Amino acid sequence: MNEFEVRSQLEEMGRRARVAATELAVLPDEKKRFCLNEMARALRLASSDIIAANRMDLQSEKAAKLSGAMIDRLTLDEARVEAMAKGLETVGAQRDPVGRILMETTRPNGLKIRKISVPFGVIGIIYEARPNVTADAAGICLKAGNAVILRGGSEAFHSNSKIAEVLNRAAMACGLPDGIVQILPWTDHAAVPLMLKMDRYIDLVIPRGGERLIRAVVEAATMPVLKHYKGVCHLFVDEKCDIDQAIRIIVNAKCQRPGVCNALETLLIHRNILSDFAPRFAGAMRENKVELRGDEAFCRLVSDAKKATEEDYFAEYLALVLAVKTVDTVEAAVEHINHYGSRHSDGILSAIPGNIDYFLARVDSSTCYANASTRFTDGGEFGMGAEIGISTDKLHARGPMGADELTTYKYLVFGNGQVR
Amino acid sequence: MNEFEVRSQLEEMGRRARVAATELAVLPDEKKRFCLNEMARALRLASSDIIAANRMDLQSEKAAKLSGAMIDRLTLDEARVEAMAKGLETVGAQRDPVGRILMETTRPNGLKIRKISVPFGVIGIIYEARPNVTADAAGICLKAGNAVILRGGSEAFHSNSKIAEVLNRAAMACGLPDGIVQILPWTDHAAVPLMLKMDRYIDLVIPRGGERLIRAVVEAATMPVLKHYKGVCHLFVDEKCDIDQAIRIIVNAKCQRPGVCNALETLLIHRNILSDFAPRFAGAMRENKVELRGDEAFCRLVSDAKKATEEDYFAEYLALVLAVKTVDTVEAAVEHINHYGSRHSDGILSAIPGNIDYFLARVDSSTCYANASTRFTDGGEFGMGAEIGISTDKLHARGPMGADELTTYKYLVFGNGQVR
Repeated sequence: MNEFEVRSQLEEMGRRARVAATELAVLPDEKKRFCLNEMARALRLASSDIIAANRMDLQSEKAAKLSGAMIDRLTLDEARVEAMAKGLETVGAQRDPVGRILMETTRPNGLKIRKISVPFGVIGIIYEARPNVTADAAGICLKAGNAVILRGGSEAFHSNSKIAEVLNRAAMACGLPDGIVQILPWTDHAAVPLMLKMDRYIDLVIPRGGERLIRAVVEAATMPVLKHYKGVCHLFVDEKCDIDQAIRIIVNAKCQRPGVCNALETLLIHRNILSDFAPRFAGAMRENKVELRGDEAFCRLVSDAKKATEEDYFAEYLALVLAVKTVDTVEAAVEHINHYGSRHSDGILSAIPGNIDYFLARVDSSTCYANASTRFTDGGEFGMGAEIGISTDKLHARGPMGADELTTYKYLVFGNGQVR
Repeated sequence: MNEFEVRSQLEEMGRRARVAATELAVLPDEKKRFCLNEMARALRLASSDIIAANRMDLQSEKAAKLSGAMIDRLTLDEARVEAMAKGLETVGAQRDPVGRILMETTRPNGLKIRKISVPFGVIGIIYEARPNVTADAAGICLKAGNAVILRGGSEAFHSNSKIAEVLNRAAMACGLPDGIVQILPWTDHAAVPLMLKMDRYIDLVIPRGGERLIRAVVEAATMPVLKHYKGVCHLFVDEKCDIDQAIRIIVNAKCQRPGVCNALETLLIHRNILSDFAPRFAGAMRENKVELRGDEAFCRLVSDAKKATEEDYFAEYLALVLAVKTVDTVEAAVEHINHYGSRHSDGILSAIPGNIDYFLARVDSSTCYANASTRFTDGGEFGMGAEIGISTDKLHARGPMGADELTTYKYLVFGNGQVR
């Protein structure tokens, strides 16, 4: 790969995206709906081509090195192409995230000030070997009026390229300019750091994948990054609570899908309920094959639990392992979460309203729960329709991000000659 | 300065701020009002001490090197201390930026989701030799529930330290924890990069000052930065407009205070109005001693105008100099602004509604004006009460930033046993 050529081709892609974004920003919503429906139709029509491209990825040398779970994520079939198409239609049907009036006021001097939502412009998305992200990201970016430059995992290169090509061609057939959806035409990693310096063309980058990928993007990028590092999620079992309900919630939060960011990783138990709670809870965990790592007080009551180390309380296991700790007060629970947690999703299971209020006000996380599973931190579950990711940052967007979070705002000021 | 000592003292300040922020986040608004009024009272009582500290700054070696304008900004007298106190009271009286319900919904499964505004936590502010920023920043941060760590210009070291001490002491006398307002206790620049790595303790940094200061902060900081690089502001005189009104607006935008970021730097003139407009406009500029740098078409009509270079169109003069360019269409005006501008404040002076709409929709700036001076881009003028700065970023905050912009949000989810 010749760096000079890569650079100039990236520049060209950036310019094309910028021009496309200018058009997209003023596109009426009916037109965006129409385009997204047409793009869905095009995906369905190209289904066998996309699956053929996917076959090339699955038969490549790179795929041979992937785990079973990763192969599963990489594999496309008719049902999965249909799901991508359906996703585009669903995003299309949502209300327009652009042009919302966020504030409107008339000043004493007669100036009318209006704050409205507008697209960012061009968004870069860097993700791992999941070809469905190509369609999802393109759809949600278009709905929010943004052009998108994609860089997917090299294992999915043929699938991603084909999907992006189909989508971009369908958009052009609807009269949109070339460059609404573009994908980096190289499998080589060297293009990524170059892309991440293109702050003249890319307004925002969203990395999706493991912590290593995300840290690498944050370090290299000169434009703003919306990100989510990890989910070290907690539940706190208060001294008074519905124990059966608490156990149901814990089983769900830990076991329903242990490999995701909103799954439970550490359970905090109030000391006053420990002896009642621990044996029943441990039984439920045993049934679900969850390995427990507890502190001394807990291990004394649950003989098959391992001893937890300091590292266990920082760990995002993403597996059927759960750290457990006894705390003396709701204050201590909050302190533990703010120290060891990742500001993702944390909850209290309690029948004491004052403790619930205290917990929700003081836990510094994007989503704080009372008496529900942490697994609900998700754009779909929040009613956002589509999700582009979850942010553990505090700037701009926190928690699940939908199409609204892919917009910024500007002020329009209408005068009739006002001067200062 | 011993780096190890500086580091450990910075850590100590960070921890103190973090603890203070936890308290501040849940402080009722009446208490914040009361504290801000008490802090104002303390400033007035300490007026002579503050002026004495300011005298030390003015008599220092560093002050001897400052320009007249900078000395003026540095100098405090009773009236200026009174203005700072008044500022604190005004901020205190505003509505609470914390706890606003931004969204509320009940999902089909009964989960109640509420999105509320919350403080960032700890904000770092880095600024130049203007001691009034110390009180303004502390006040607006406190109103938004944030603790603040300040680093002012070394020329104002004694003034800033005294003001911060008075404010922090007054807050403590109201029962707030130590560390609401802290100031770096060194004049040495070496502490700044260390402060900018403290992302464990500081959630957000806001630099206030010249472009060099801001670029240095952006490069060194590992936490998010809200910033404003420069204001290359434009007005576009359309082919149909009220010429007298246009000239009044231009004179105001250029001359009322040429050294500020929302002052006019480039004027674009529609070719069809050029011969009518140019002579009258040039006359008004002559009266106001504004040096004009125009393109060929303009210079042909205005003989005392200089020829503009490409650099002139990128320039933020901050002085009585104005670049002028002839354009053929509103499209060309928008293209010029999006290419040469800084996304700050740009306006159209026009009697053609379609052109106004086109301009406002397509100019990618934080604030877009129709028939008014760009000088209105200001928190006070927008009715925000107090302002912490103007952002030319797109992430989180754009344009003037008030206390609302010093908050982020979180989701509270209320359940009664919901699992997924």
